[in-house]
Amino acid sequence: MDKLPARLNARLARRLELLVLDVDGVLTDGSLWFGARGEQLKRFHVRDGHGIQLLAAAGVQVAVISGRRSAAVTARCRELGIAQLLQGAADKSCALDRLLKKLSLLESQVACIGDDTPDIPLFVRVGFAVAVRDAHPLAARAAHCRTTLPGGHGAVREVVDWILAMRSGQ
Amino acid sequence: MDKLPARLNARLARRLELLVLDVDGVLTDGSLWFGARGEQLKRFHVRDGHGIQLLAAAGVQVAVISGRRSAAVTARCRELGIAQLLQGAADKSCALDRLLKKLSLLESQVACIGDDTPDIPLFVRVGFAVAVRDAHPLAARAAHCRTTLPGGHGAVREVVDWILAMRSGQ
Amino acid sequence: MDKLPARLNARLARRLELLVLDVDGVLTDGSLWFGARGEQLKRFHVRDGHGIQLLAAAGVQVAVISGRRSAAVTARCRELGIAQLLQGAADKSCALDRLLKKLSLLESQVACIGDDTPDIPLFVRVGFAVAVRDAHPLAARAAHCRTTLPGGHGAVREVVDWILAMRSGQ
Amino acid sequence: MDKLPARLNARLARRLELLVLDVDGVLTDGSLWFGARGEQLKRFHVRDGHGIQLLAAAGVQVAVISGRRSAAVTARCRELGIAQLLQGAADKSCALDRLLKKLSLLESQVACIGDDTPDIPLFVRVGFAVAVRDAHPLAARAAHCRTTLPGGHGAVREVVDWILAMRSGQ
Repeated sequence: MDKLPARLNARLARRLELLVLDVDGVLTDGSLWFGARGEQLKRFHVRDGHGIQLLAAAGVQVAVISGRRSAAVTARCRELGIAQLLQGAADKSCALDRLLKKLSLLESQVACIGDDTPDIPLFVRVGFAVAVRDAHPLAARAAHCRTTLPGGHGAVREVVDWILAMRSGQ
Repeated sequence: MDKLPARLNARLARRLELLVLDVDGVLTDGSLWFGARGEQLKRFHVRDGHGIQLLAAAGVQVAVISGRRSAAVTARCRELGIAQLLQGAADKSCALDRLLKKLSLLESQVACIGDDTPDIPLFVRVGFAVAVRDAHPLAARAAHCRTTLPGGHGAVREVVDWILAMRSGQ
Repeated sequence: MDKLPARLNARLARRLELLVLDVDGVLTDGSLWFGARGEQLKRFHVRDGHGIQLLAAAGVQVAVISGRRSAAVTARCRELGIAQLLQGAADKSCALDRLLKKLSLLESQVACIGDDTPDIPLFVRVGFAVAVRDAHPLAARAAHCRTTLPGGHGAVREVVDWILAMRSGQ
Repeated sequence: MDKLPARLNARLARRLELLVLDVDGVLTDGSLWFGARGEQLKRFHVRDGHGIQLLAAAGVQVAVISGRRSAAVTARCRELGIAQLLQGAADKSCALDRLLKKLSLLESQVACIGDDTPDIPLFVRVGFAVAVRDAHPLAARAAHCRTTLPGGHGAVREVVDWILAMRSGQ
């Protein structure tokens, strides 16, 4: 919490109603474990999970939009109580449209964390767009700020800490 | 052993009867490997295991208190001879109370290693509270000191080395 | 895209028709996960996969030449639409000969990414030879340039970005 | 090959007949993947394997002495053609005695790579003792030199490169 991103003032933080997360490269470090039958494992991080539960407890919803499909993601989201899970989203901007309509929210009420160029259409729309530290250079440039931690190593928790600190007026 | 933490003098080290370990982020680097049926694997470190056996041989008990439940943790603790294993501990301070009562120990006889905010209620009670190098900033601040190694990469062994060096008057 | 390798001018980039990838150490970080029945898992990277799809969409073919055999590689290549997959290639130069003949291409139309000495016979033949950042020193010396990212962590994507930037005249 | 360890002159290198490897922390980075039924996976490195094959081709035998037992190690050694495999060795010095007797070798003809205090009894006996870069401080101190790469990330290959360079008079 030493240095909060300039973009995130208290007004923006209190306005946020939804945090949209990418999976591969954000909730994970981008690794895909393959066996003979295709992808078999994903590696998540315990401190990200704790952050997601803290944010939900503070009344901010969490959604996951992923370009891939993975039963491991379904299992992890179930454990964390993430009800809004959109997998196989070829066009993430369309997926966001569906989410906003379903939840009756505005783009400005949404924060988003991504790592690669398919996330840029989300970054340019939402109120607070964050790239993980090891994001693709183009995604990093399109975001409002970058985390200090890489994806899969607590980057999501870092953003949650920023938002909660700003909302509580710290 | 180049630089021992200021908090840990020989008197404190010799008074220690119990080392309490968190699992995710301490005995592991915080990674949770998920497959279709939920969490499937945890990654421990061989040099931590060796340290735990050295500490037990020196007469200091080792206990594990984890907020999650995992059969992998049960298997690892069985291999290492860790009899005091408390999983699914929503409130870690309550778990410590049960442990202290069962083992007839005082808080001041306990060292603890943690990585995140749920460990802080333990940190403020025990005689020697250590955060792993990559701990959450609030947990790091609440601990007496930090390891130089991150969780899951020998941080537990480092603390064991400190304690054994101090007890032997090195 | 801040600094493109000196070797890769627009003429060379536009001439490229094929990118040849090694697997272990290039598409992965060199890790081989073994269980009781031998190798069981390989770890690929999501941003490499995205890059391979971008390159294919730009009309450059992608081939994989590996000294080992792995069902995980077959599965990953199928997902990415990589049709040219040569596994168990003891002599990679022979494998390249077969590829060039099959696709009616010249060496100068080929780029190659490798990490170790068995890749050197390819490096000395192709138009653009790239070693991953953590390549064996001899392989690094034999290549035209090195990526800034290590194998399995987006090195392939980095090379794709170079090629696409040069082809589009950026 | 930029900087060879002072200990390893051409005479010593040419005298070496056997390289003894520890498993956890040397052929791996020390990670132990546990599931519900105990340890399930070990992660080896492709460039270490290549080095082991290069050394064997140059006429130097390779043996593995491990304190643990693992079917994954058996599988990996079979693939690499390592015939001398001693697992479950509580006392590594005894295991070395058996090896030397079996192969009719002297301690001075042996090189050894280790990472932790149980390897020290080997380090003090053999002709060339190497600790991996991330070895326990006491093991690092007892060795003749340290690799620049950590265990499981090519440290074994680095030592092989040293030995082969010195034997060939490079």
